[in-house]
Amino acid sequence: MNDKVPDCQVSVLRLGHRLVRDARMSTHIGLVARAFGAASLIISGTDDETVDSLKRVAQRWGGDFKIQYTKNWRETLRSFDGVVVHLTMYGEPIGDVMPKLREASNGRRLLVVVGAEKVPGDVYKVSDYNVSVGTQPHSEIAALAVFLDRLFMGEELNNIFENARIRISPRPRGKGVENLTA
Amino acid sequence: MNDKVPDCQVSVLRLGHRLVRDARMSTHIGLVARAFGAASLIISGTDDETVDSLKRVAQRWGGDFKIQYTKNWRETLRSFDGVVVHLTMYGEPIGDVMPKLREASNGRRLLVVVGAEKVPGDVYKVSDYNVSVGTQPHSEIAALAVFLDRLFMGEELNNIFENARIRISPRPRGKGVENLTA
Repeated sequence: MNDKVPDCQVSVLRLGHRLVRDARMSTHIGLVARAFGAASLIISGTDDETVDSLKRVAQRWGGDFKIQYTKNWRETLRSFDGVVVHLTMYGEPIGDVMPKLREASNGRRLLVVVGAEKVPGDVYKVSDYNVSVGTQPHSEIAALAVFLDRLFMGEELNNIFENARIRISPRPRGKGVENLTA
Repeated sequence: MNDKVPDCQVSVLRLGHRLVRDARMSTHIGLVARAFGAASLIISGTDDETVDSLKRVAQRWGGDFKIQYTKNWRETLRSFDGVVVHLTMYGEPIGDVMPKLREASNGRRLLVVVGAEKVPGDVYKVSDYNVSVGTQPHSEIAALAVFLDRLFMGEELNNIFENARIRISPRPRGKGVENLTA
């Protein structure tokens, strides 16, 4: 049982990306990964549009988020030195798993595997944890966000993104944006 | 300050839906709304594909989730009898707002407004709360999921969906599905 925010570097592995059809979904996966405290996104398959769009956001909004490709996600999974978590509606409830997962991942790397509609059976076997964010069908984007929000206990939303060109000043009405390049 | 799960009926209003381009995104918005405890989705604009796909899920997986159209979202907003929350990266931090929002929405209806890329300025004015889920660009799907997960304090994932045809039996490996129609 561990109720402290784990000190772990998170990467997100996006499986099943099918180029054009999934470009926006994968872009959202990448943006969520970055905004909720992951250090990098690994996309299975090549897609310049998604990668370019994520890189533009990262340049403008700061931080050190990395985007990589893999041509062999099975090898990426097998060779990963750390804890592998597969998000799936068939897995163990997030509320049950999270305390032990925080403990297991503390001081280690964590790979969060996010699939598309059909995920090959061996992903379930090679993962250390299969974790469900509810047992109803919804969205891999939502599952990733809630998983990271619970892993980091909300503190990820206070992260500072270094070298940003712009930054938002929160307010109850309207939009406040600071230009940091002046 | 209120740290109890509010007793409130949540509707989600999806603005800026642009038919084909947004069908998958709006479908995910609807699925997230349903899976994370909202009672209904209101889509601004007509899109049979999105609505049909959501209805098919709701029939198969149970529950009483409603999907409606509006041709005049400004009227929907103005005439809403309850608390209106607009999710926007420019708003007040969710961590600051949530305790007072739980209190304000207890025993009332809550409308969560989720925009597309550009949201008209009057949405900021007519909303009771403009709430940010982090100040980094990410995803309206993610913002909605995290918002509802925090509003309902994780309890929404234990909701029972009545009259379901299938149901998942969570497990550490593989897939467990119960067929409830036999």
